[in-house]
Amino acid sequence: MPEPVLAEIAKPVIHHRTSQFRDIFADLSQRLQRLFGTEGPVLTLAGSGTTAFEAAQVSLIAPGPAPRALTVASGKFGERWQDIYQACRVEQIRLNVTWGSCPTAEQVAQALQENPDISVVTLVHSETSTATACDLQSIAQAVREHGCDALLIVDGITSVAALPLHMDEWGIDVLVTGSQKALMLPPGLGFVGLGPRAVHRLQQVKPDGCYSLDLRRWLESWQDRDVPFTPPVNLIRGQRLALEMIESHGIADVWARTAELADMTRGRLQSMGLQLISDSPSDSLTGAFYPSGVNDGAFRAALREKHAIQIAGGQDGRGGQWKGKIFRISHMGHVDADDTRAALDAIETQLTAAGHAIG
Amino acid sequence: MPEPVLAEIAKPVIHHRTSQFRDIFADLSQRLQRLFGTEGPVLTLAGSGTTAFEAAQVSLIAPGPAPRALTVASGKFGERWQDIYQACRVEQIRLNVTWGSCPTAEQVAQALQENPDISVVTLVHSETSTATACDLQSIAQAVREHGCDALLIVDGITSVAALPLHMDEWGIDVLVTGSQKALMLPPGLGFVGLGPRAVHRLQQVKPDGCYSLDLRRWLESWQDRDVPFTPPVNLIRGQRLALEMIESHGIADVWARTAELADMTRGRLQSMGLQLISDSPSDSLTGAFYPSGVNDGAFRAALREKHAIQIAGGQDGRGGQWKGKIFRISHMGHVDADDTRAALDAIETQLTAAGHAIG
Repeated sequence: MPEPVLAEIAKPVIHHRTSQFRDIFADLSQRLQRLFGTEGPVLTLAGSGTTAFEAAQVSLIAPGPAPRALTVASGKFGERWQDIYQACRVEQIRLNVTWGSCPTAEQVAQALQENPDISVVTLVHSETSTATACDLQSIAQAVREHGCDALLIVDGITSVAALPLHMDEWGIDVLVTGSQKALMLPPGLGFVGLGPRAVHRLQQVKPDGCYSLDLRRWLESWQDRDVPFTPPVNLIRGQRLALEMIESHGIADVWARTAELADMTRGRLQSMGLQLISDSPSDSLTGAFYPSGVNDGAFRAALREKHAIQIAGGQDGRGGQWKGKIFRISHMGHVDADDTRAALDAIETQLTAAGHAIG
Repeated sequence: MPEPVLAEIAKPVIHHRTSQFRDIFADLSQRLQRLFGTEGPVLTLAGSGTTAFEAAQVSLIAPGPAPRALTVASGKFGERWQDIYQACRVEQIRLNVTWGSCPTAEQVAQALQENPDISVVTLVHSETSTATACDLQSIAQAVREHGCDALLIVDGITSVAALPLHMDEWGIDVLVTGSQKALMLPPGLGFVGLGPRAVHRLQQVKPDGCYSLDLRRWLESWQDRDVPFTPPVNLIRGQRLALEMIESHGIADVWARTAELADMTRGRLQSMGLQLISDSPSDSLTGAFYPSGVNDGAFRAALREKHAIQIAGGQDGRGGQWKGKIFRISHMGHVDADDTRAALDAIETQLTAAGHAIG
């Protein structure tokens, strides 16, 4: 986190039913709209990215056998959105793609053609568990050209403020992200951008079995520059400042820096003889398989304890069992070329120490 | 907020899948158990008190006509818990009590006797909107003596760490609170304590239409000193420290201080000729009706701008229309006798300025 953001969230709490808070909240909302590239509302929910995505899922389609959702998964998070519709008894067509690969516009178009009653499509732009990004613009176009009423709900949790993304221009109906990745804040806030078709749909669907996740409640408050429940005031102040910092750099520069760090990382890891986990790598993070003989826990502990560097391990899901087999490095948010070089040097040192022959 | 707590939440983010976080989380969980007075799990959710209460409501009873919930309301928050069961299609018997009064053990016992299929009772210990507390110990006893399987779910959002409360000793099945009141943290965390009967019930009920609010998921992670979704790490660190501060004072001293501030406030307001809004005042906050001729907005703005004092106004609900008619002063958390006297002096000054004849 940038120091000024941490200092901002440590300011004394202001009450949320005051004009001071409403001004901060309105400023945050406008910055989120510019970041998402939308003229529609961007709602700020308390919770994790999962809270925000579930709210979008359950608010835009009612339970039952019809209409159905098309749920695209190529990693742990796409699978979670499938789990949510299963828990909520929304009938779904699952489009499962091999972990490390990405879904294509052709696959989505075909699934929509075969299932004309699809009402909602869930898609992950940058699948964090596999460090893989899809061609969101083409997929969005395929959904729009399908001609039916299907809404596209996009998980942008590791893509918003990291990868080029234009919500309105690309015709994305719902875009969800969280505070703790490229938005440079601690965890605790989730965001839901709503295009005009999604706002229209909200008025038609009667969500079933939810109250605080019902986006109609959040939208109504938002239109009044307000929130329906006591919000994490300090995190909201911090998020406003973090977005001001992003805007002062220029979002295009942030995207370019992220891409450069990713490019450098992929090159260095491959020159160490490692295999990337993705055939369509996201620029927001990079993952590689461990060479044989390297223990995940010991390796990451050495990086943390000897080099003060934190990287992520792998995750298990239905489509992959990557726990202990891979590691992942983030390029999002408050991280620069020096940080990344230091991480790569440390990785090289510890791989060598673990007996892997470099180069 | 205490300054050290604000400094704690401004520390750099630590990753939540680390032993460092798990140690902090385990320490927080133990302190919450002591604070609640329970040997059962106390779960830490991201969100507001509403998030946590809704999670308890929907996880412990399935939708449908039977079994039913008994929902006790005597203010805006009790009414919100009724709204949630209505949104979730859980059949309910509403026990509505006049705003400013509190429900009694006799009323609850009678409702249970008349409705033997009640499976869950929702109750507000300290109703924030009316500054009114009920006799929780007696009501809990009435529910236990009813002999049926009914679980008591208690809203302790403005009572935990403010009013004497012993979850296990009193036989409370579920106790919910939030971080932003007597727990001395900014908003953003909700807590759910589960007694043994509630833990048992969790395994039996199949919650309908929810995923991130399904407490089984949170309980399973908790048993592994973990959380199911990315948690607000910084707020969790701050909450751990705030509870350490409360324990270093001693919880009995905190209760006594809260009661003293409430007593002083009630005395001063009555000596100014004001009428309290409650016939069973909570010690966690005090409310009074405005004398005629005092404008709510102007009065509270003068307190804020001329005295840097923030008090709350009134709220509207089904059982009362108190917006603009009352004001409320908090005695919870990081507030002492000097703060309270300063607030009361300022109130006297501004009432006089508004033309109210004091004494």
